[in-house]
Amino acid sequence: MTENSAADDRKARARDWFESLRDRIIAAFETLEDQASPDLYEGAPGRFEKTPWTRPTGSGGGVMSMMHGRLFEKVGVHTSTVNGTFSPEMAKTMPGADEDPRYFATSISLIAHMWNPRVPAVHMNTRFFSTAKTWFGGGADLTPLLADQRSQDAPDAAAFHAALQAACDAHDPAFHPKYKAWCDEYFFLPHRNETRGVGGIFFDHHDTGDFEADFAFARDVGEAFLASYPAIIARRMGEAWTPEERDEQLIRRGRYVEFNLLYDRGTTFGLKTGGNVDTILSSMPPMVKWP
Amino acid sequence: MTENSAADDRKARARDWFESLRDRIIAAFETLEDQASPDLYEGAPGRFEKTPWTRPTGSGGGVMSMMHGRLFEKVGVHTSTVNGTFSPEMAKTMPGADEDPRYFATSISLIAHMWNPRVPAVHMNTRFFSTAKTWFGGGADLTPLLADQRSQDAPDAAAFHAALQAACDAHDPAFHPKYKAWCDEYFFLPHRNETRGVGGIFFDHHDTGDFEADFAFARDVGEAFLASYPAIIARRMGEAWTPEERDEQLIRRGRYVEFNLLYDRGTTFGLKTGGNVDTILSSMPPMVKWP
Repeated sequence: MTENSAADDRKARARDWFESLRDRIIAAFETLEDQASPDLYEGAPGRFEKTPWTRPTGSGGGVMSMMHGRLFEKVGVHTSTVNGTFSPEMAKTMPGADEDPRYFATSISLIAHMWNPRVPAVHMNTRFFSTAKTWFGGGADLTPLLADQRSQDAPDAAAFHAALQAACDAHDPAFHPKYKAWCDEYFFLPHRNETRGVGGIFFDHHDTGDFEADFAFARDVGEAFLASYPAIIARRMGEAWTPEERDEQLIRRGRYVEFNLLYDRGTTFGLKTGGNVDTILSSMPPMVKWP
Repeated sequence: MTENSAADDRKARARDWFESLRDRIIAAFETLEDQASPDLYEGAPGRFEKTPWTRPTGSGGGVMSMMHGRLFEKVGVHTSTVNGTFSPEMAKTMPGADEDPRYFATSISLIAHMWNPRVPAVHMNTRFFSTAKTWFGGGADLTPLLADQRSQDAPDAAAFHAALQAACDAHDPAFHPKYKAWCDEYFFLPHRNETRGVGGIFFDHHDTGDFEADFAFARDVGEAFLASYPAIIARRMGEAWTPEERDEQLIRRGRYVEFNLLYDRGTTFGLKTGGNVDTILSSMPPMVKWP
């Protein structure tokens, strides 16, 4: 293969991986919708609706997959694959863009808000970025809504961290401590002096110089998410909840909104630079209270 | 009077005005709570609860006055009077602070979210700022929640604008066009390509060189608000609403949250510089949907 076709092959494989992961996550979530007890969850099992979109410039697009179900109050699993040329200003901040301002990016991003306040919300995304350099970025973090689930050793948090740590440790024992700390630092609300949830991992510019190893790491993060979050839901979904717990959930969701609109780089950058508003704000909780 | 005591006298008069305006607004709102029909509004008439706060530095404080009523779903009418010294960075952006970084500020700020989606939400604030210079700032703007109330010539919008225009015109016919345009420009959500509401007026660094005239203008803005908003409520509060209208209201409130957290200078500046979180976020709507 020429260097160009090798690069194209990597982009295609990354894209295929994100889209196949999306399909498997959707299948797992729809199965959970089917399994949710009608004693606790009203209505028919939800199904994902897919909405393709393209950038006005024509340089790529994606697919929004949203479900408003009986177990999943609102969940989005989005993939996108875009390419373009960085503005001179943006180029300064992106690795490799000083050599060549053209970029390619393919990604999956997911956010789930559940009806049951006893089931944590979750966020996951992974992306492959290609300029004159290539790298992976992303992460996954868990947001329990009830105070008694928000310690690091609460069962859901412990299970989530263990799955991500195993995925990291299989590649390099240095990854998990570094990426867990980065997550805690990133998902923090200074004005509340609170973390958004119990964390997980967060990484960016992940480039060891070995594409195959880095791609395998990104895949393992996706596999760890798929192995752990649906299992957390399955363990929790049979628990009945009180109106007070639902209220606590709706109030805590306000912190999620505050974080996303005040601090999240993807959200604020996307909204302020003409990104796809529907996709970007599909992460917002379906119902929120600031009492 | 010496120059210093004249300055102190102005500060005290501005503070007294904001606090007396607060008391009159609270009385008007509580009267409306009493008048709301039990056929439409559940529960007992609400009453304001006052919570004084002081800055951790001890350089002033304020009083939060909040009511969670049957007509007013959530309303805050806050006053604060603080003094301090600008950081060198802040001093660069504030008139007069290059001469002397000390400042004094006294203000009223109000936000009302109503149960009835047919009654618009409102925001009003006015402040007196004193550095080596002095000026007034503030404004008032109306946010109807239903699409058919969001034109400039809808009855509520027209009444609100007329009241503010009369207050402005009594001082200078140039004020209203300028301050109405400033309001439209300020309360705009670029990512939605939408205004937050139907506008009103917005002004800052209002300093004609005549303190008495400027203070009279600030008072007239407050009087115009007090004459117009309670009257809008009184006309609308007897109208029954549908669940679909309530839903439309909760969704439109999302725009309010997006504006405040993404763009509002007071909110983002306050939250990112250690302001009183409870007071700053008391403007958030009590319940919001992003479906």
